[in-house]
Amino acid sequence: MENFVRRTLLYDFYGELLTEHQREVYEAVVLEDYSVSEVAADRGISRQGIHDLVRRVDRLLEGYEERLGLVDRFIRIRNQVIRINEMVSACTADELPGVRQDVAKISGSILEEL
Amino acid sequence: MENFVRRTLLYDFYGELLTEHQREVYEAVVLEDYSVSEVAADRGISRQGIHDLVRRVDRLLEGYEERLGLVDRFIRIRNQVIRINEMVSACTADELPGVRQDVAKISGSILEEL
Repeated sequence: MENFVRRTLLYDFYGELLTEHQREVYEAVVLEDYSVSEVAADRGISRQGIHDLVRRVDRLLEGYEERLGLVDRFIRIRNQVIRINEMVSACTADELPGVRQDVAKISGSILEEL
Repeated sequence: MENFVRRTLLYDFYGELLTEHQREVYEAVVLEDYSVSEVAADRGISRQGIHDLVRRVDRLLEGYEERLGLVDRFIRIRNQVIRINEMVSACTADELPGVRQDVAKISGSILEEL
């Protein structure tokens, strides 16, 4: 997964476990792409301080994912839902019995993830 | 939701954020239904200590859910997946066009949750 997408997902899932200060700086630098100098000046912290915070937050978020694995779980579910939708949307009347079975199988495996 | 089911779900989602000690005691008392006296004797802690730990863990788990809301999110997804499967499994050839639309709509709303 592309690094930016992964960081966005991790932040989406676990961001609420960070402090408000961590969230604000991380959002500005990583998600909204403000320059480190800009954010540093804005908040009266050193550029080094910003770098340290971002690195620390990356580690925290990866640590949560290591323990909870929710991003992985959601991605697997997402792919299965997309597959069901594709199968049903392309299904002809002839194929209905087979699709019925496949949808039951995939639904079952989604529910096991939940 | 029944209290036991809710606690099990919360524990399933957020248990890994607890300490090992918290997990072991909470599992024994709340999930496996050992008596407080038994667990207290086993671990050399007072019965009051066990009660306090369980209460603290309940608060921690509810706190995580308040911030992250993942149990709620998963339950909503679960219900929508069940609905898709029911619709497809009961679908006749005549109903296929309508079901196709409904599945696309529900899938879309699941993907928005993810």
